[in-house]
Amino acid sequence: MASKLASSPNSLLLQNPIRQNLPLKPDSSAANFANFATQNKPISIRCSATSTAPVSSIPATQDPEGRVFNFAAGPAILPANVLKKAQAELYNWRGSGMSVMEMSHRGKEFLSIIQKAEADLRALLNIPEDFAVLFLQGGATTQFAMIPLNLCKPDDQVDYVVTGSWGDKAFKEAQKFCKPKVIWSGKSENYTKIPSFDGLEQSPYAKYLHICANETIHGVEFKDYPTPKNGILVADMSSNFCSKPVDVSKFGLIYAGAQKNVGPSGVTIVIIKKDLIGNAQEITPVMLDYKIHADNNSLYNTPPCYGIYTCGLVFEDLLAQGGLSEVEKKNTKKAELLYHAIDESNGFYSCPVEKSVRSLMNVPFTLEKSDLEAEFIKEAAKEQMVQLKGHRSVGGMRASIYNAMPLAGVEKLVAFMKDFQARHT
Amino acid sequence: MASKLASSPNSLLLQNPIRQNLPLKPDSSAANFANFATQNKPISIRCSATSTAPVSSIPATQDPEGRVFNFAAGPAILPANVLKKAQAELYNWRGSGMSVMEMSHRGKEFLSIIQKAEADLRALLNIPEDFAVLFLQGGATTQFAMIPLNLCKPDDQVDYVVTGSWGDKAFKEAQKFCKPKVIWSGKSENYTKIPSFDGLEQSPYAKYLHICANETIHGVEFKDYPTPKNGILVADMSSNFCSKPVDVSKFGLIYAGAQKNVGPSGVTIVIIKKDLIGNAQEITPVMLDYKIHADNNSLYNTPPCYGIYTCGLVFEDLLAQGGLSEVEKKNTKKAELLYHAIDESNGFYSCPVEKSVRSLMNVPFTLEKSDLEAEFIKEAAKEQMVQLKGHRSVGGMRASIYNAMPLAGVEKLVAFMKDFQARHT
Repeated sequence: MASKLASSPNSLLLQNPIRQNLPLKPDSSAANFANFATQNKPISIRCSATSTAPVSSIPATQDPEGRVFNFAAGPAILPANVLKKAQAELYNWRGSGMSVMEMSHRGKEFLSIIQKAEADLRALLNIPEDFAVLFLQGGATTQFAMIPLNLCKPDDQVDYVVTGSWGDKAFKEAQKFCKPKVIWSGKSENYTKIPSFDGLEQSPYAKYLHICANETIHGVEFKDYPTPKNGILVADMSSNFCSKPVDVSKFGLIYAGAQKNVGPSGVTIVIIKKDLIGNAQEITPVMLDYKIHADNNSLYNTPPCYGIYTCGLVFEDLLAQGGLSEVEKKNTKKAELLYHAIDESNGFYSCPVEKSVRSLMNVPFTLEKSDLEAEFIKEAAKEQMVQLKGHRSVGGMRASIYNAMPLAGVEKLVAFMKDFQARHT
Repeated sequence: MASKLASSPNSLLLQNPIRQNLPLKPDSSAANFANFATQNKPISIRCSATSTAPVSSIPATQDPEGRVFNFAAGPAILPANVLKKAQAELYNWRGSGMSVMEMSHRGKEFLSIIQKAEADLRALLNIPEDFAVLFLQGGATTQFAMIPLNLCKPDDQVDYVVTGSWGDKAFKEAQKFCKPKVIWSGKSENYTKIPSFDGLEQSPYAKYLHICANETIHGVEFKDYPTPKNGILVADMSSNFCSKPVDVSKFGLIYAGAQKNVGPSGVTIVIIKKDLIGNAQEITPVMLDYKIHADNNSLYNTPPCYGIYTCGLVFEDLLAQGGLSEVEKKNTKKAELLYHAIDESNGFYSCPVEKSVRSLMNVPFTLEKSDLEAEFIKEAAKEQMVQLKGHRSVGGMRASIYNAMPLAGVEKLVAFMKDFQARHT
């Protein structure tokens, strides 16, 4: 694919010397994006050669509805059709005479919403009957405490494989509530690897083995899963939840903040084997006890209703796309396109992550000439590609290309990267 | 006002015998509301005599936009203009090219939203500089644990005045983390009173005195506040937050779930004196530590961004109305109208709460002929007045008339109550 890109007519277009003389105004406000696009319409970047779609379907620089391509790591881009549906229904949901935001969480309207959301999620991930699905609050960070509080006694051993910042945070929080051990850490290699499962020295009595299935900041992703020697497998899937099929039965507990692939922030989804529920430590706050939420179908207290509703719209959309196998194909195609562009840049761009475990969702990369990174980010923003700055803890760039990022967004980014490179080599 | 109502021409209209023969279809779906309204347009209930507004401004039974009057206790009615603004901006927030749901919580757009929300809330409640304002998750129920975890050591004494179910829940949760004592309970009188402050036997070393400023289920509201002998005053204001001016400086900590007066569910607002922050117990989960959130301006983890945005729109609206003094006037007028209707019904309706402490927000009432209650609720729903059923723990009816409930909604309810009474006596 890389050579195909290099030989496309568009790569000549993108190297058009006129572009190098464009005045690049400071990125002072979102309004500037639109101004810039209007001024420069004649030389809009196109990237049809990277797509199988007809030329006419490739967006010009300026989306007719003014939408940008949002590469943020989370909260993140949501499907345009989901947002439009939410917008249409916001004031008066399906003849109910009220917004979903105004509905009693115990009324029949909202019950139908949360029950459908759960049913659709169960269908998407083929969740077995002996697993509960909970819609909670507080993000993955709350789960970092909730998991040991519910699955362990204070003296219990648990194992953590730490492949990035989030796994490390989960480990540190668990120290308050049990005896966690880091049995592998990628820190000395800047979190660019996933360990070989054979070599993991698991604690013989560990109650669980914790992994972060996709590290949002470092861009490393488990492609397969280790088998716990004792206890169960627990996975933080916040940033790759519903991005591909997962065999839920391999896990005891899966958790995910919604704000990457499936909804707005403020909803946390927990999928937990039912026989693990009901053993919380005495010091567990009622809101951090899985049993309370499971016994009450996530309605013990007022749940984040509007967020759950939006997640439900996303689940519907994922099912309509053909389910997670189809979604994975699209994600693979987008990721391959971007990683190829990086790898074929002769070192102008580079991604530090070991190739076999590169994330389909979060693509960190750096510039050989690191002093150009700020300009890269600024120019990309002027082309309606925003939030490309890497996490403050690692620098560089990061393109988060979640389910809702269209292929056209990645194509445009790749075209821009080639153009930028041509202008700076 | 009651006698004025009784002698108004409308009270004759409302007793129109034709109404008694109306076929009342089963309340099977929201769609029925609209059908019913259309069928019965000629005899729409009007209640202009209870209002100073001209007749033409009183809504007919069928709102032209299909909105119902939603008397739910929370999540609850939101201002129509706020919902319309949210709807207009949902797909592309103010030229940013994205929805608020898609924005990075660390991007300049969302920072402007959360900072304005905080500034507007500070203006509304005149919050002193030595108080922090936090936007959290997990509802008041999470605060029930978070407060003792942050303000107490395990052996510390704290006092609870229990005036309803929520205060009782707060007390029970605190038992996990300190030594709480119920120094007064209204339980034996079915939670219909607020105690005299002089008679409270406060513990001499109590770290705090906890009250629930408005009990959503029982409809009792503190009209003034006790002074702690030792320590600070802590108040759950979930169901009367921003319904009237409050002297924040009298409190050490005020907390409120947003989903009554100021936004959708999933946002919890905490106003805490800064010098109380930083003493959390060692077993405190990081997400339950006020210091973490205060040090990070509520952005330690991903906050419930869309909920905070909506709260911000409500704060703007409350300021535009003239602030909380003006809002309180409107709330007082609505509540007086409804309580008068109950008290002047010759016992057909009754409210058990002591008159001096009746809530401006939640009005529980029963029918003398309790076997008519189901019919009352069903008929009201057919007239687009929904969620009037009392909490499952107490039965009867409850009309929650939060800030966003228009006077017209209360007028319509009162007119309906008179009509219903006329048809059943």
